[in-house]
Amino acid sequence: MSIVARRLSTGSTTWRHGNWLRSFSTAFREERDTFGPISVPADKLWGAQTQRSLQNFDIGGDRERMPEPIIRAFGILKKCTAMVNMKYGLDPSIGKAIMQAAQEVAEGKLSDHFPLVVWQTGSGTQSNMNANEVIANRASEILGHKRGEKFVHPNDHVNKSQSSNDTFPTVMHIAAAMEINSRLIPKLKTLHSTLHSKSVEFKDIVKIGRTHTQDATPLTLGQEFSGYTTQVKYGIDRVMCTLPHIYQLAQGGTAVGTGLNTKKGFDVKIASAVAEETNLPFVTAENKFEALAAHDAFVETGGALNTVATSLMKIANDIRLLGSGPRCGLGELILPENEPGSSIMPGKVNPTQCEALTMVCAQVMGNHVAITIGGSNGHFELNVFKPMIASGLLHSVRLLGDASASFEKNCVRGIQANRERISKLLHESLMLVTSLNPKIGYDNAAAVAKLAHKEGSTLKEAALKLGMLTGEEFDTLVVPEKMIGPSD
Amino acid sequence: MSIVARRLSTGSTTWRHGNWLRSFSTAFREERDTFGPISVPADKLWGAQTQRSLQNFDIGGDRERMPEPIIRAFGILKKCTAMVNMKYGLDPSIGKAIMQAAQEVAEGKLSDHFPLVVWQTGSGTQSNMNANEVIANRASEILGHKRGEKFVHPNDHVNKSQSSNDTFPTVMHIAAAMEINSRLIPKLKTLHSTLHSKSVEFKDIVKIGRTHTQDATPLTLGQEFSGYTTQVKYGIDRVMCTLPHIYQLAQGGTAVGTGLNTKKGFDVKIASAVAEETNLPFVTAENKFEALAAHDAFVETGGALNTVATSLMKIANDIRLLGSGPRCGLGELILPENEPGSSIMPGKVNPTQCEALTMVCAQVMGNHVAITIGGSNGHFELNVFKPMIASGLLHSVRLLGDASASFEKNCVRGIQANRERISKLLHESLMLVTSLNPKIGYDNAAAVAKLAHKEGSTLKEAALKLGMLTGEEFDTLVVPEKMIGPSD
Amino acid sequence: MSIVARRLSTGSTTWRHGNWLRSFSTAFREERDTFGPISVPADKLWGAQTQRSLQNFDIGGDRERMPEPIIRAFGILKKCTAMVNMKYGLDPSIGKAIMQAAQEVAEGKLSDHFPLVVWQTGSGTQSNMNANEVIANRASEILGHKRGEKFVHPNDHVNKSQSSNDTFPTVMHIAAAMEINSRLIPKLKTLHSTLHSKSVEFKDIVKIGRTHTQDATPLTLGQEFSGYTTQVKYGIDRVMCTLPHIYQLAQGGTAVGTGLNTKKGFDVKIASAVAEETNLPFVTAENKFEALAAHDAFVETGGALNTVATSLMKIANDIRLLGSGPRCGLGELILPENEPGSSIMPGKVNPTQCEALTMVCAQVMGNHVAITIGGSNGHFELNVFKPMIASGLLHSVRLLGDASASFEKNCVRGIQANRERISKLLHESLMLVTSLNPKIGYDNAAAVAKLAHKEGSTLKEAALKLGMLTGEEFDTLVVPEKMIGPSD
Amino acid sequence: MSIVARRLSTGSTTWRHGNWLRSFSTAFREERDTFGPISVPADKLWGAQTQRSLQNFDIGGDRERMPEPIIRAFGILKKCTAMVNMKYGLDPSIGKAIMQAAQEVAEGKLSDHFPLVVWQTGSGTQSNMNANEVIANRASEILGHKRGEKFVHPNDHVNKSQSSNDTFPTVMHIAAAMEINSRLIPKLKTLHSTLHSKSVEFKDIVKIGRTHTQDATPLTLGQEFSGYTTQVKYGIDRVMCTLPHIYQLAQGGTAVGTGLNTKKGFDVKIASAVAEETNLPFVTAENKFEALAAHDAFVETGGALNTVATSLMKIANDIRLLGSGPRCGLGELILPENEPGSSIMPGKVNPTQCEALTMVCAQVMGNHVAITIGGSNGHFELNVFKPMIASGLLHSVRLLGDASASFEKNCVRGIQANRERISKLLHESLMLVTSLNPKIGYDNAAAVAKLAHKEGSTLKEAALKLGMLTGEEFDTLVVPEKMIGPSD
Repeated sequence: MSIVARRLSTGSTTWRHGNWLRSFSTAFREERDTFGPISVPADKLWGAQTQRSLQNFDIGGDRERMPEPIIRAFGILKKCTAMVNMKYGLDPSIGKAIMQAAQEVAEGKLSDHFPLVVWQTGSGTQSNMNANEVIANRASEILGHKRGEKFVHPNDHVNKSQSSNDTFPTVMHIAAAMEINSRLIPKLKTLHSTLHSKSVEFKDIVKIGRTHTQDATPLTLGQEFSGYTTQVKYGIDRVMCTLPHIYQLAQGGTAVGTGLNTKKGFDVKIASAVAEETNLPFVTAENKFEALAAHDAFVETGGALNTVATSLMKIANDIRLLGSGPRCGLGELILPENEPGSSIMPGKVNPTQCEALTMVCAQVMGNHVAITIGGSNGHFELNVFKPMIASGLLHSVRLLGDASASFEKNCVRGIQANRERISKLLHESLMLVTSLNPKIGYDNAAAVAKLAHKEGSTLKEAALKLGMLTGEEFDTLVVPEKMIGPSD
Repeated sequence: MSIVARRLSTGSTTWRHGNWLRSFSTAFREERDTFGPISVPADKLWGAQTQRSLQNFDIGGDRERMPEPIIRAFGILKKCTAMVNMKYGLDPSIGKAIMQAAQEVAEGKLSDHFPLVVWQTGSGTQSNMNANEVIANRASEILGHKRGEKFVHPNDHVNKSQSSNDTFPTVMHIAAAMEINSRLIPKLKTLHSTLHSKSVEFKDIVKIGRTHTQDATPLTLGQEFSGYTTQVKYGIDRVMCTLPHIYQLAQGGTAVGTGLNTKKGFDVKIASAVAEETNLPFVTAENKFEALAAHDAFVETGGALNTVATSLMKIANDIRLLGSGPRCGLGELILPENEPGSSIMPGKVNPTQCEALTMVCAQVMGNHVAITIGGSNGHFELNVFKPMIASGLLHSVRLLGDASASFEKNCVRGIQANRERISKLLHESLMLVTSLNPKIGYDNAAAVAKLAHKEGSTLKEAALKLGMLTGEEFDTLVVPEKMIGPSD
Repeated sequence: MSIVARRLSTGSTTWRHGNWLRSFSTAFREERDTFGPISVPADKLWGAQTQRSLQNFDIGGDRERMPEPIIRAFGILKKCTAMVNMKYGLDPSIGKAIMQAAQEVAEGKLSDHFPLVVWQTGSGTQSNMNANEVIANRASEILGHKRGEKFVHPNDHVNKSQSSNDTFPTVMHIAAAMEINSRLIPKLKTLHSTLHSKSVEFKDIVKIGRTHTQDATPLTLGQEFSGYTTQVKYGIDRVMCTLPHIYQLAQGGTAVGTGLNTKKGFDVKIASAVAEETNLPFVTAENKFEALAAHDAFVETGGALNTVATSLMKIANDIRLLGSGPRCGLGELILPENEPGSSIMPGKVNPTQCEALTMVCAQVMGNHVAITIGGSNGHFELNVFKPMIASGLLHSVRLLGDASASFEKNCVRGIQANRERISKLLHESLMLVTSLNPKIGYDNAAAVAKLAHKEGSTLKEAALKLGMLTGEEFDTLVVPEKMIGPSD
Repeated sequence: MSIVARRLSTGSTTWRHGNWLRSFSTAFREERDTFGPISVPADKLWGAQTQRSLQNFDIGGDRERMPEPIIRAFGILKKCTAMVNMKYGLDPSIGKAIMQAAQEVAEGKLSDHFPLVVWQTGSGTQSNMNANEVIANRASEILGHKRGEKFVHPNDHVNKSQSSNDTFPTVMHIAAAMEINSRLIPKLKTLHSTLHSKSVEFKDIVKIGRTHTQDATPLTLGQEFSGYTTQVKYGIDRVMCTLPHIYQLAQGGTAVGTGLNTKKGFDVKIASAVAEETNLPFVTAENKFEALAAHDAFVETGGALNTVATSLMKIANDIRLLGSGPRCGLGELILPENEPGSSIMPGKVNPTQCEALTMVCAQVMGNHVAITIGGSNGHFELNVFKPMIASGLLHSVRLLGDASASFEKNCVRGIQANRERISKLLHESLMLVTSLNPKIGYDNAAAVAKLAHKEGSTLKEAALKLGMLTGEEFDTLVVPEKMIGPSD
């Protein structure tokens, strides 16, 4: 009661999305743990330990709740542990009820009963207990018992043979693997595919190259896009390449990695069950001590996401600069118009998708640093930056995936080449002079370019004036279309 | 309609807190902008441009909405601009209606009408238009007109003499200044005050010092806490020290910083009005070009928050290590028990508040990098990482404030010294040998310590055995209470 | 001997600049510490502890030596401690010899005798002992004694009343304050002054503005440069603003902050002496516990440097983009030609100074993260990331200062406006339409711009075609020179 | 001449290691490029463009020179390009002379002729020209011609079919691959091997576990070290896993990636030649546009190094905390004494190797951020943060390798278990209570632990007092040796 009163008065967690609070009945029931009794909203399934965390960690508000994929992964895991525990003697009726309740968690049906924020105990113990309590109460109800009676016990039954110290890293890995496979990779693949299509579409458009932001030798617009395509392709590889460590599950390590209070083979069975449940190749972690005490796998994957962000930042920057204008920029690309660009400047269309994407990239880079710092600060048998590390990585995965999809759909797919502008710039360029190098040598070619630059003339005029070669020779040598690859 | 259908089917924004969607009536009205007509939920106040952004930026889900303090700051700003615009000729009845509607936004009453996420256009234009549209529709209603009719026009009236390019940085600064002053600083001050009380409470408890994690010369526990106290005190100074740049408002710069489409003095009047409205010393920015094109002020304040995070990380780390145990750690501090510590290890109490706080610190450091990257990537007249920069800073401010408050309340306030343990460790230490230095010299003192270490004996026994000095001399020289300060 | 043999065989420290090694005579003398005897090159002044560090920390090679400003600051500090110690009873002949030797260190004359790398003990103890040993041996020689005899003792005399734990943070602060004041600030001021001159020089050049990299309303080139000027001005303020914490010296805290083995007033006297010696307002640290256990002051100053780097990154990026071309870029600025731009493309001139500067900025941002991580990882009474923190900050100070100077001298100073190009772009722009807003309203203005864009016509033609206003009205309204400020 | 005068007067590059300057004869010769003539020290092999860079980029001093591995890689590359160019028609006598000169560069014999710093043009053009000029002059001498005469021409011969834009990324990749393979991986493997040995050596030592820094269930010291061993093993895998992208060489892309001015097959031949020369599996880059415009491969490898740093930070932190004491810390490990620990506290031995290593880890994390920022800021066909990215990665590789070796040799190898202390702590612990869980249930077990904690008694005494079980039952259940793994 006090917690509700406190929160409603300060408004701190009703901030924005506190609808769950408004649905509180005025009724409470008593739940109890080793600390004693505590009042819990009657219409919620959570128990004493969840309630305590809610009161003790009033940090950040509702928006900072443990990410949904973690909650769902708890559902998957608790379903699997119940199934395996039945093989080791857990009462089947209780086991089945747990499995049913856990399935509901896995499907997101009970998400309103997971109110805890990321900023709690660093082992994620409180979210593990939240899962245990919700599932125990729900399973009890399924079996015809009341909430809070612990007919199905959160510790002795739901958390049987487990510790927060192995369940939380396990759900971190399950959630990350699922989100990466279902959300990020498909969206990056679509982006890759569209970039590749553009690369093919633009394969014959010869344009000026730019190095140091300065005019350089020509290439095709398709070649330019092939670089972006390759970046995204390698990015997908990079993320996939880190998944084998993510597929290692800590489950079975219990409190410190030894597997105390489990039976031999428990760890392998759990990993198999999770693999079957998720259709992903999870295995039991080779070394459980590493799996609890460190989260190098997340730092590694964070590094891959950081690389993807680096790639996307480059691509989006190029596209907005190539699309700059309409009249005073480079103007080589025409970006799709999705909205009015400015509240004061009519007629202006902005590269807003590039902007959203590059903001996401900066955030992903920042999250990577946070994950790295958390990852490096474990002590002894346990790293206690787990919720932050999990939340940061899932945040980055979600943002990168969604922003890639938005960028693909609302920008890349609709990019058109401004052929007229591209051609105009190409033929005004001085850098075609490079093709004279093999004929007249570097120093002479430089002299031609300098003269044209000084006099505002064409290269041909300058070359003729300097007597370097004939007009015919020039025309034979300076053919942009011949400058876009090695010679035979 | 399509948007609602799409979102409901993919479930992407109903993820977790999508209650606002469920409250959609099936009715829609038509809104229109320079792009043409678009359907908008009938019960929402937003208009066409907001709706477009909602469709074009499906990134991150509901949890990524523009932070509430930004929305409220828009309310404050639009109220002030209407008031000033009336002095320059805005119809008073329209002006007053805008002020009333804006006041409702400032009070958070219309927050459900601000659905846009951070990951939108990098100028924040769409959130500015969201504010303009909501206020225009609400003001129209106040004046007896219908939504969508634009009796009060979002651009011509609400956004009069403004551009997103100056309003968004202005609300960034208003929101940051308000959050820092109302949320962060008071909580840091409370933490400082409690640490200081502990420093006084512990002023006579002499304990072993530790350098390189190794035993060192003694100090009092109060002195140790005085270091923490000083860190927090300086941290408050550091944040406050950056506020003068935050108090500079971009408003009046309009699109590129020149102030086009404003009247002379408009900028100064706005800053005064905002200052009066918020009771904070806002002034108009000295140079509007800098104020739009860069967000160095946020990078600077982010640096101050980063320093505070560094301090709090150190303090929380020390406290958890000094409180380690109960039997196999350092055990000098007794931390308050707030919850059962472990789901498998009964009797264990964990430094969970330290863990939440250090996770927050890591995130703040990461956000700082994101802000820095965003801040460094502006182009020409506008930095287009604004929503990310604003969101990152406000996130850090909120987390640091809340976590400091939680840490103070649920940890520091209840810390007790384990006097028995402290005394035991102190008197077992070899490092008291340092007080022999001035008498017998460094090399001899080292020999005494080495002998005691080797033989497991006391320093006194070793000193006597080596004939360095008499027992009386030893007792006179080695008095921990005399080792905690300079001599006269 | 073994060390020399080892190093010469592996080549690890002769890598690049190992000249000091080649000058080793084959002769060695014996030095000794509490660990026993050890061979030291006869022509070097260092002693046993330095030699041990040299053998135990073969990390990074010669290039990673402790930065010169730290060595020189040791000279200053040891001179001051000797002077103050004489007031407390140090033998005057020994004291004066120490002062003379220390002065030589301060002047850089003995730098070849400081071979240790940054990657040593985290307290900097070994560099403190290096200073003690070199000064003791040199002072002994001054007094007619031999090296290694310890007539002047490195601990009992040179390090009297000191600990590495207070001397090293003290030299960190001295070195940082001196480098910032002598190297960074003057160079930033010169850059500021030159940018300001350019701002004045360009004050009448009206040009197109760019937001979102898209054409926007006009401003003057002088206004654009005034933004850069303001950024640098604020940057100087930001760095200066952090100096008060840098001016606090830890000296007098000795091992753990208590000041054990010092006399009352020692700390204040040392700070005064250092202040006099350096002509900078050093004071004794208010709280010595904080001064040893944390380096928040460096994290804070690192944050200011990070902000300066953010500013300079923006400025250099703008300048290279505005100077892009010569024919296919924006081409508004003409950058000085300092070297041939490319080994294959004659005639090309690259913005190389911008490139060097932006690379420096990225490194400064990275160093800031390293400093932050080091700063947050202190334990108990001592932070043991001191040499890394010091080295990182001094690296950033040096690079930022030098790169700013190079950028100013070799780029900014010689920047010319390409008036012809600027004018051409301005008058082709569609964004001048904004000045029609107050007259015909936002929606109509948008229609004009859209028509001109679609038909490739001028704004005037479009406006007339749409019958929005007469040609005279248009000419009166659309005057770029009137668009660069608020109206009366 | 002017450059020498300038530098000597400012002293900026004589700072520390400016010996190369002192060896300048007073004689100069004239070199010339497209910019005109310039004086160069007569005893140096470099030419005009190197000299210009030296004058234009006075940033950071001698310590900031382009890393040696880059210089050597230029030697390798230029040898290979000459060899391949001969197949395409380069005069064999010139080709062979180039190969001989390049070989000298590859062996480090001409390193004194590479004076340029990292902070130059962002394409590394000036270092490429430095290599071209040195090799051209040296090759000319070999053929009996004078320096500066360009008998062998730096551009037309040495740089034939190349651009800085493809050579510099190529040497980046060669240098990184060589350093990683020759310096980092072997040292990490040695560290891994020694950690593994310790894990085996300690396999029977049962000790208290620690989670949340609090006492937890037991494990063996060998198990604890097996976690560290696994971290390092995975770290090696992580780095190796990124090498395939590093093995892709940009050579053949020339200026913008098209391969202009090369013959078909040139790229493949070069990669083969480099592979043969280095005995590493280099291949030509699949997409040259990506290879010039992005350095994602370095960001990726930087991420792997960042993960290794995270692992080593954890390991070193644990070791110093487990070795804390000697009397007031955890004291479970005895670390080797390598040096006197403190200048004021005799008898103290500090974990200095851990400190050096953790400082290195922080720097590696910082460098990773710098590399990421540089990597994300490429424009169009070229990333111009190349020297910084290369330098940062090579710095990290070198530091991690050397520090790992130092840590292994001077710390890990000599670690001993303090068996007495370990046993004492284990048996005092309350956490053995966990083994009662399966027998008496979680809540009862908690009650036993709480009573023992309250009364300072043993668990057995408490259990008997509460009548939970008999003494015999207790002794059968509570056997630490049985708690270090799953049960049958």
